[in-house]
Amino acid sequence: MPWIQRTIELAAQPRGFHLITREVVAALPELAQFDVGLLHVFLQHTSASLTINENADPDVPADLESSFAAIAPEDFAYLHTCEGPDDMPAHVKASLLGASLTIPVHQGALALGTWQGIYVGEHRRRGGRRRLVLTLWGERAG
Amino acid sequence: MPWIQRTIELAAQPRGFHLITREVVAALPELAQFDVGLLHVFLQHTSASLTINENADPDVPADLESSFAAIAPEDFAYLHTCEGPDDMPAHVKASLLGASLTIPVHQGALALGTWQGIYVGEHRRRGGRRRLVLTLWGERAG
Amino acid sequence: MPWIQRTIELAAQPRGFHLITREVVAALPELAQFDVGLLHVFLQHTSASLTINENADPDVPADLESSFAAIAPEDFAYLHTCEGPDDMPAHVKASLLGASLTIPVHQGALALGTWQGIYVGEHRRRGGRRRLVLTLWGERAG
Repeated sequence: MPWIQRTIELAAQPRGFHLITREVVAALPELAQFDVGLLHVFLQHTSASLTINENADPDVPADLESSFAAIAPEDFAYLHTCEGPDDMPAHVKASLLGASLTIPVHQGALALGTWQGIYVGEHRRRGGRRRLVLTLWGERAG
Repeated sequence: MPWIQRTIELAAQPRGFHLITREVVAALPELAQFDVGLLHVFLQHTSASLTINENADPDVPADLESSFAAIAPEDFAYLHTCEGPDDMPAHVKASLLGASLTIPVHQGALALGTWQGIYVGEHRRRGGRRRLVLTLWGERAG
Repeated sequence: MPWIQRTIELAAQPRGFHLITREVVAALPELAQFDVGLLHVFLQHTSASLTINENADPDVPADLESSFAAIAPEDFAYLHTCEGPDDMPAHVKASLLGASLTIPVHQGALALGTWQGIYVGEHRRRGGRRRLVLTLWGERAG
């Protein structure tokens, strides 16, 4: 199978954790042709992040937001403050959570667990649009 | 080389960090045939996690457990509390640590450092069995 | 394209976060030949880590250092203390940040965002040289 690589832009989101599983899958119609493979999702930013978490209860992303705000608080003796009080905590969260995910592909679909969804963590108050590089590779059944 | 993809189930474990390097390697007898490649290990759950850490001193997983319990405490104003006080902290730890690992394969073996082992972090008191999707790909020497 | 896999050693660094994007790219002259692919960077240690973050302002790595020192403090009731007060916090940071990165390759270069750089997090006061396994795979334009 040829490699698929595609850049998509997510709409601007308020600060918090937002499910993007559907947008990612919708951007990859070729997924159905892969019998086995992997999808790599890469966020080209340093003040937002990607994570996999519970996809059903909207309280979960709300609690992720409050938890990470407590772990990387705005009220800390940062040096890098020129872009506002939410900037350096956003960089810390970006490193805690990471800029990329790799997800197995099995029989034409992402092999996510029942409760797993892909979230973007928007850590700025006004982060704007965010760019993802999707890379899909693998093979078709023999 | 054809891709290898296999799902395995880990036995239920008590809350804490548990070495699973041997179980992962034992599930992949084909590993010996890969001259160069990668192994992707993916956990299909949102209240447990995977991490690489020191594989020798049992105090290390004990300290990881107490450290992550302090970073994502049960005593916090969570909204998502219906599944018990250990549930939302488990989701936070799942995002802090991550659901997947990618490890290089070199000359038929995982290219882990001397002190590196693969751990599952069980973040629930009664998490039950946990499912891993192992994906191995690469090539044989020419 | 054949797979490229190569081990490099980073010079010993003081505790803190250090940009290594140039060293990683310089070790992979073959990168220019890949039209699409992925680079996997793997650190074979458990008291240092890899992360992607803002590559321009030196205050950012300084703030990452102070932030992670607050999240995983030396002053905590660790059991694993035989290697000094900076050892167990280093293991916690290694799990918080992770030992590997996967970065898309597009038209012969890493598809990093404008502000993204690759950092090694050295979490020991005297960590010594650190070993990276670089694995590059993908395809050339048809």
